[in-house]
Amino acid sequence: MTVNVLFAHNEAQWEIYKDPLEQAIRAVGVDAVLSRDMPPEEVDYIVYAPSSWLQDFTPYTRAKAVLNLWAGVEAITGNETLKIPLARMVDFGLKQGMMEWVTGHVLRHHLYIDFYLHHQDGDWLPKVPPLARDRRVTILGLGELGSACAEALAGLGFPVSGWSRSPKQIDGITCHHGDEGLKQALKKADILVLLLPFTAATENVLNAESIGWMPEGAVVINPGRGQLIDDEALLNALGTGQIGHATLDVFRVEPLPADHRYWGHPSVTVTPHIASETRPDTASEVIAENIRRGEAGEPFLHLVDRDLGY
Amino acid sequence: MTVNVLFAHNEAQWEIYKDPLEQAIRAVGVDAVLSRDMPPEEVDYIVYAPSSWLQDFTPYTRAKAVLNLWAGVEAITGNETLKIPLARMVDFGLKQGMMEWVTGHVLRHHLYIDFYLHHQDGDWLPKVPPLARDRRVTILGLGELGSACAEALAGLGFPVSGWSRSPKQIDGITCHHGDEGLKQALKKADILVLLLPFTAATENVLNAESIGWMPEGAVVINPGRGQLIDDEALLNALGTGQIGHATLDVFRVEPLPADHRYWGHPSVTVTPHIASETRPDTASEVIAENIRRGEAGEPFLHLVDRDLGY
Ligand SMILES: NC(=O)c1ccc[n+]([C@@H]2O[C@H](COP(=O)([O-])OP(=O)(O)OC[C@H]3O[C@@H](n4cnc5c(N)ncnc54)[C@H](OP(=O)(O)O)[C@@H]3O)[C@@H](O)[C@H]2O)c1
Ligand SMILES: NC(=O)c1ccc[n+]([C@@H]2O[C@H](COP(=O)([O-])OP(=O)(O)OC[C@H]3O[C@@H](n4cnc5c(N)ncnc54)[C@H](OP(=O)(O)O)[C@@H]3O)[C@@H](O)[C@H]2O)c1
Repeated sequence: MTVNVLFAHNEAQWEIYKDPLEQAIRAVGVDAVLSRDMPPEEVDYIVYAPSSWLQDFTPYTRAKAVLNLWAGVEAITGNETLKIPLARMVDFGLKQGMMEWVTGHVLRHHLYIDFYLHHQDGDWLPKVPPLARDRRVTILGLGELGSACAEALAGLGFPVSGWSRSPKQIDGITCHHGDEGLKQALKKADILVLLLPFTAATENVLNAESIGWMPEGAVVINPGRGQLIDDEALLNALGTGQIGHATLDVFRVEPLPADHRYWGHPSVTVTPHIASETRPDTASEVIAENIRRGEAGEPFLHLVDRDLGY
Repeated sequence: MTVNVLFAHNEAQWEIYKDPLEQAIRAVGVDAVLSRDMPPEEVDYIVYAPSSWLQDFTPYTRAKAVLNLWAGVEAITGNETLKIPLARMVDFGLKQGMMEWVTGHVLRHHLYIDFYLHHQDGDWLPKVPPLARDRRVTILGLGELGSACAEALAGLGFPVSGWSRSPKQIDGITCHHGDEGLKQALKKADILVLLLPFTAATENVLNAESIGWMPEGAVVINPGRGQLIDDEALLNALGTGQIGHATLDVFRVEPLPADHRYWGHPSVTVTPHIASETRPDTASEVIAENIRRGEAGEPFLHLVDRDLGY
């Protein structure tokens, strides 16, 4: 029997995903028709981006699952019309790309690379960093992405601490959890990386109080979500020097408005939500595997707990 | 019996090394006197920096070895008055620091970090790098430092090739050697790292011809020695775009003269010979161990082959 897969995302992404997705679904032995346009009552699976035109799931009466193309699901977990399972994207390319981006920016700050880039006018000014073993990195969020970053950084010699909701054990990483754990983790964050999902419980986790727990002059790197940071509190802390620099990839409003104070701020680096992209080839394999599982009656991978919001 | 150790380097370094060196020598069970000033004929070991005032070794009639504080020995291998063994510095801190610096700058170029630093004026301009697996890194020199960098970069996912004088086998690294090997290694150098010593055989290894073998727009990172590069050829290649960027830590003349064309060049980053420092605590242990070996009649570690020049 033919399975109907609706690609509920824009035309540009359809052009990119069409071929790898068709190939990947064929490779798992499922006979499928893919389209951006099919009668709702005939759709079996919805490949989805939260920015999609599809916001009312009611007419999709026979659909078995919504398969998200992105890792972040905050824009869909609250959708009351969605009653079927929701899987988020967990993908080799996404994880590898995030690990590279976080490792690169941690090393950039660790090695004072910006200082050197700003001193190219003929002055020979050595500024020698400590070894990685004397630079403590803390990662909030020890999920798919956070734990991959933690392990890569520990492998390079950084002492790495992490924080999650539930208790965790990861070789070579000091793991904290819960409210008291947050304070302990932030106290030793010479460099802080935010890789939490945006939920009711994580909103503004970095605020005036929690910033105060961090070592003076600490660096903040945020590839998680803009809502994790109280922007006013961060700007104040950048002003006083409590935070030495912030490298921000995600924002409450994206694209970040051209007149936002983060742009051009001497202690802020803005990157345009590029820390890690879903890669069509590897992501298509994850989606195809979930369709295969759905057809075989096996449990879906990477299901979202809609009460927790991630 | 007391062993006399001459510290043949400047006052500032003496202040830094005095305590860790005394401690480290005591820790290996040797009874020593350390000083910057003792009668030459009473000296047993010479702790040395090639920039030292000591250039005539003739009066040091009973000295057993010269123990270099640096990894690079090109300024002393040609000294005709030196007849005793010469050991160079191989040190945990030196190796770790170089691995961090090289990894940081490879990731900086790989992730287009400079592009983002230059676009902080309100334009949301995504420029997405490939994954590390699609960025080939080549390292010339697979010694203590080059092999540590190669392994760290391969661990992050880069396909890494290397080049050395003698054939080598390193897990996960494609190893080349000799003249034909150089061409093969450079052909796939999207990012090239120079970690060769400066010898008669390595001078100008990067010249107009060998630069021509590299992929167009390749990046050069040189923490080895300035003399490895034909500067005129590199500047030409930066002009034509054959080389996209050069990050240079070492130069024929250091400090790099303020009017040198590398300063302020839009495609060059100058760093002031800081890629990796000898770290007094760990380096002192290496020197102490060699003194212990000398006293016990055991072979010295890290001896320089003065015919090869490294
Ligand atoms: N900038 C980009 O390009 C980009 C790309 C992809 C993803 N992202 C962001 O990265 C986020 C993380 O992705 P992921 O795949 O690693 O997610 P994940 O696997 O779901 O991991 C989330 C982690 O956050 C922890 N967490 C959640 N709520 C918490 C709370 N209230 N207190 C403490 N810890 C909490 C979880 O704890 P438990 O382990 O206890 O559940 C888990 O360790 C995504 O949600 C997305 O926002 C950004
Ligand atoms: N910028 C800084 O802060 C800094 C700090 C420390 C060191 N350095 C520089 O880094 C250099 C390397 O240090 P290291 O400790 O890694 O040295 P090493 O252990 O002696 O390794 C040198 C490597 O270069 C290779 N090599 C030498 N001559 C060659 C030739 N003619 N053709 C091909 N390969 C050749 C060697 O090949 P084989 O393996 O076949 O012998 C070896 O793999 C030092 O000499 C120094 O100049 C710079």
